[in-house]
Amino acid sequence: MFGGMRQTAVVFTDRFFQTADAKTAHGLVRGPCRFDVIALLDRDAAGRDAGELLDGKHRGIPAFADLDAMLAALPKKPDCFVLGVATSGGVLPPSMRPTILAAIAAGMHVVNGLHEFLADDAEIAAAAARAGVRLIDVRRPRPRRELHFWTGAIRQVNAPRIAVLGTDCALGKRTTCHVLAAACARAGLKAAIVHTGQTGWLQGIPHGFVLDSTPNDFVSGELEHAIVQCDKDLAPDVIFLEGQSALRNPSGPCGAELVLSGEARGVILQHAPARHCFEDQEHLGNVIPPVTEEIALLGYYRTRVLGMTLNHANLPAERREPAREELQRATGLTAVYPLLEGADALVPAIRAYLQEQRR
Amino acid sequence: MFGGMRQTAVVFTDRFFQTADAKTAHGLVRGPCRFDVIALLDRDAAGRDAGELLDGKHRGIPAFADLDAMLAALPKKPDCFVLGVATSGGVLPPSMRPTILAAIAAGMHVVNGLHEFLADDAEIAAAAARAGVRLIDVRRPRPRRELHFWTGAIRQVNAPRIAVLGTDCALGKRTTCHVLAAACARAGLKAAIVHTGQTGWLQGIPHGFVLDSTPNDFVSGELEHAIVQCDKDLAPDVIFLEGQSALRNPSGPCGAELVLSGEARGVILQHAPARHCFEDQEHLGNVIPPVTEEIALLGYYRTRVLGMTLNHANLPAERREPAREELQRATGLTAVYPLLEGADALVPAIRAYLQEQRR
Repeated sequence: MFGGMRQTAVVFTDRFFQTADAKTAHGLVRGPCRFDVIALLDRDAAGRDAGELLDGKHRGIPAFADLDAMLAALPKKPDCFVLGVATSGGVLPPSMRPTILAAIAAGMHVVNGLHEFLADDAEIAAAAARAGVRLIDVRRPRPRRELHFWTGAIRQVNAPRIAVLGTDCALGKRTTCHVLAAACARAGLKAAIVHTGQTGWLQGIPHGFVLDSTPNDFVSGELEHAIVQCDKDLAPDVIFLEGQSALRNPSGPCGAELVLSGEARGVILQHAPARHCFEDQEHLGNVIPPVTEEIALLGYYRTRVLGMTLNHANLPAERREPAREELQRATGLTAVYPLLEGADALVPAIRAYLQEQRR
Repeated sequence: MFGGMRQTAVVFTDRFFQTADAKTAHGLVRGPCRFDVIALLDRDAAGRDAGELLDGKHRGIPAFADLDAMLAALPKKPDCFVLGVATSGGVLPPSMRPTILAAIAAGMHVVNGLHEFLADDAEIAAAAARAGVRLIDVRRPRPRRELHFWTGAIRQVNAPRIAVLGTDCALGKRTTCHVLAAACARAGLKAAIVHTGQTGWLQGIPHGFVLDSTPNDFVSGELEHAIVQCDKDLAPDVIFLEGQSALRNPSGPCGAELVLSGEARGVILQHAPARHCFEDQEHLGNVIPPVTEEIALLGYYRTRVLGMTLNHANLPAERREPAREELQRATGLTAVYPLLEGADALVPAIRAYLQEQRR
């Protein structure tokens, strides 16, 4: 997008960094990232290190309370100002507006992953034009003429696909893709990722598309096209497909495309033992069905769960092992906590799947 | 769109009328229609009646070979020129272009249900501006600000929903919605339909949206919003939700939204006994799974199949009864051929479902 040079960026979360709404920022801090993240802008995090706040690991990303404090402290202003929130509805919180306008006036390009496009906002667009900076709306779909329909070209792809699906959304499926790829790399397997969200693009994953802003009829074809390109460009041993939402999430079911249109005959299933209702919306009472049922359901889609990855959020340390053992006993599959221990324990099952698929 | 008056229309299919690509035209000829269809423009159908060609029923819709012949024969030029094809990929066949430009020059508004928008076509847009006619791109989604997210408001809807799903696409699900609504009306039940395709809009169904051109993240919310509005405006006894594609169609799975986000706890399942592979694409070898399996799969989505509607395409007359009996025996459900015999036989199961849902 800006040519070969890696640009520096500040991630802006207003005061959302320590909430689930900042999952985009969390992914960028955790890395990988298309940009070199040199600062966080969040009033509630000021004075701390973004990495330390996220998971206790210092990453040399200082947090500042406001733009002036940041510009005064940094040796050089960041090239880009990245909105690090994924609000419900994808709408720009009005409280973030003045800071965005100030960043534009200070000469930073603005990168936006929300559904609301900055380039369509008259005031922001005019400010950007005056300042000579770019507005990059990551979620804006390609022009219709450039979108792909599903053709069955998936049949010509060499690398077997594994869909990383979840029993709910916002569980860490994207991060698990990175952890799985790293585990594969340690085992001598070349893994690639096809991203399906705006954060994957921000992280610099070279193949993928933004599923949720793609017109529905083109989702399967854009996915197929991204997989075909990934296979051609990288010739990987395995391709992990980043899942979105969950097969039975009432606020927007997703996942069938990955296994059917992407012909992923294997699945890694991400699950949060401590979560009860979809998207934690207890008032709606839509209880997340049991993992064993999800595995049976996936069988109807001609795919097989190879292993489980567990999200330990809200799970007290002493309950982690019992939760893992219970799930392993019920399913006969290996379960790992990817953020705590990586995913090396899943490599044997992945390797067996690849051998079976190549036969 | 044009105020209260019902406008006249010619449906243009070039030479596709007698192919599955003209399913939009078939729906408009069969009715209901937002327009008063007074002619068909199709070189291969010229001299015949569109209704007779479709299903043997004369409907007083003469077919013409070209625009000049039509304008010479009709007492008054139609108000609207409706593109009646749904080509694979939604692209405008180049062969149709000169006739569209001629229709514009002759002063007709052009109504287009393809993915390719006429208003974005420089030559066609300029011609329309010169002629002072409108270009209506039915599939153009609403501006992002006007799109709805799913909120759970479906919980406040009074009328139980029944999703009309299919084991494949292009099976007649939309037409079955009309047949079911008519059967309900005869039995004293007030039925409404929520459409999910551009043809439903062309038919004048007051509630619905075009699912396949909606950005994926808004599909569930637009569906929920349409159902909520339908329930408010019409207070029906039951709402039929028009299904798209099939749960396991690899070229674009669909249907889970209707049962999960629309909370349709009942399903009418449309099936074509003579069809073997999805979308008749035998070369891909994606065999349509058995109906009994589809019914089991739907159980995982917390919905129940109430009855079956069968498409008799390519099914010789003598195989119809055996096919029905086999499906009824295997499923324990009633199956009807809606185009041949209506759907009155399904009303008892629908009535039982409504009683159960209101409890």
